[in-house]
Amino acid sequence: MKPGLFITFEGADKAGKSTQILQLEKRLLASGRPVLRTREPGGTPLGEELRNLVMQCRKERIADETELLLFAASRAQLLRETIWPALQEGKTVLCDRFADSTTAYQGYARGMDMDFLERLHGFTVDNRWPDLTFLLDLPVEEGFRRLRQVLQETAAPGDRFEEEGRLFHQRVREGFLQVARKFPGRFVVLDAMRPADELSQEIWACVERRWKA
Amino acid sequence: MKPGLFITFEGADKAGKSTQILQLEKRLLASGRPVLRTREPGGTPLGEELRNLVMQCRKERIADETELLLFAASRAQLLRETIWPALQEGKTVLCDRFADSTTAYQGYARGMDMDFLERLHGFTVDNRWPDLTFLLDLPVEEGFRRLRQVLQETAAPGDRFEEEGRLFHQRVREGFLQVARKFPGRFVVLDAMRPADELSQEIWACVERRWKA
Repeated sequence: MKPGLFITFEGADKAGKSTQILQLEKRLLASGRPVLRTREPGGTPLGEELRNLVMQCRKERIADETELLLFAASRAQLLRETIWPALQEGKTVLCDRFADSTTAYQGYARGMDMDFLERLHGFTVDNRWPDLTFLLDLPVEEGFRRLRQVLQETAAPGDRFEEEGRLFHQRVREGFLQVARKFPGRFVVLDAMRPADELSQEIWACVERRWKA
Repeated sequence: MKPGLFITFEGADKAGKSTQILQLEKRLLASGRPVLRTREPGGTPLGEELRNLVMQCRKERIADETELLLFAASRAQLLRETIWPALQEGKTVLCDRFADSTTAYQGYARGMDMDFLERLHGFTVDNRWPDLTFLLDLPVEEGFRRLRQVLQETAAPGDRFEEEGRLFHQRVREGFLQVARKFPGRFVVLDAMRPADELSQEIWACVERRWKA
C-alpha cells in the first residue's frame, strides 16, 4: 500500500488552522480518503497528559528547557505510536502544529540554542518530515484583534504584558517565515487574512497536486 | 556563601544507593551541614508527575525516544527549580540517580545514539555536573539475588524475561563502569558487595576530603 501524505498546519493562534484542518478533512473524506486528524502537543494518551502538564497553571515555574523537552517527548510519542502507523496504513495525516512550531516559538522567539534544536528535531522526527506544511501567516496585530474578539474585549489593549507579547509574537511570525524559506519544498505560505473558503480551495488544490506528483 | 557540594549516587537497583544516601544525610546533618535529598526521575512536583507517567503500567507503549526525553525533561526541571538553588544556598545536594543513569540504561544498554545523548546532557545539565558521583558497583547476579529476596521468591529464576534482563543489566553495569573511567575526577567506584557500614565510612571520608580540597 502507498503510504499516506503527512500534512501539518503551522502559524499563530487564531490564524485559522483548526478551520482549515476541518475543511481539508471534509474534502478528503468526501473523496473517499481515510484521514487521521491530530494535534501537538498531545494526540496520544501520554501526549495529552503532557499537554495538560505543560498548559495548566501551576505554582511551579516550568523551565524553558523542561518545556522544550516535554514538547519533544510528546512529539516522539505521537510520531511512533500514531502518525507513522497511520501513514503506513495509507491514511492522510493532518496535524495541528508540529516541530516547526518548536523552532518558531522556542528557537526564534525564546532564543534557545538553535543548533541543539536541530539535533533534537533530528532525533525526534528521525528525518521523516511532513510532505506538506501549510503556514497560515497572520500579522501580529490581526492575531491580537481576533484574540480580543474571542475574549470579548476582556483583555485591555496596550498593557505591558500585551506589548511584551507583541515582540514575542513578532519573533514567532518571523521565525515561521524563515523556516518556510529554508524548506521551500514542503512549505506553502498562505496569507491568513484571505477569506477561509478561498484558502480552503487553495489548500485542496495543493494537496491534489501533491498526489499527482 | 560558598555553594554546596553536588553529590550523586549511581548503580543498579538493589545496589544499596538509598541506604548510603540516608547514612550520608545523617552524617551531614550531625555535622551541622544543611542537606537536600532528592531523586531522579522526580524531585519536583512536575518531575514526580512525569515519574508516574513513565513508571506506571499503561496500555500505551512508551517509545524509547519518549522515555529518554521525559527523563531529560524531569532532570532539566529538577536542576533549575531545586538543585541549583539549593547549591546556591550552600546546601549539600544528594541525588539518587542522575544523568549517568541515562547514559548507562538508555545509551549503553538500550543502544540509543550516544552522540545525541551527550548533546542532550549538555543542554540539560548545562555543564554543571556533580562534584562527586558514587557508583555502587554490583554483579548482576547479586542484584537479581537481592531482588528475588525482596520479591520473596515470587520471580521464577532463569525464565526468558530474566535471561533477557541479565544481558540488559550486564550492559548497564558495563556502561556505568565505562562512564566512571571517562570521568575519574568525579567518580568513586565502590564494591557494593562490601558491608554497608564500611561503605558508608568510605563515602564519608571521600566527602570530607572533597571539602578540604
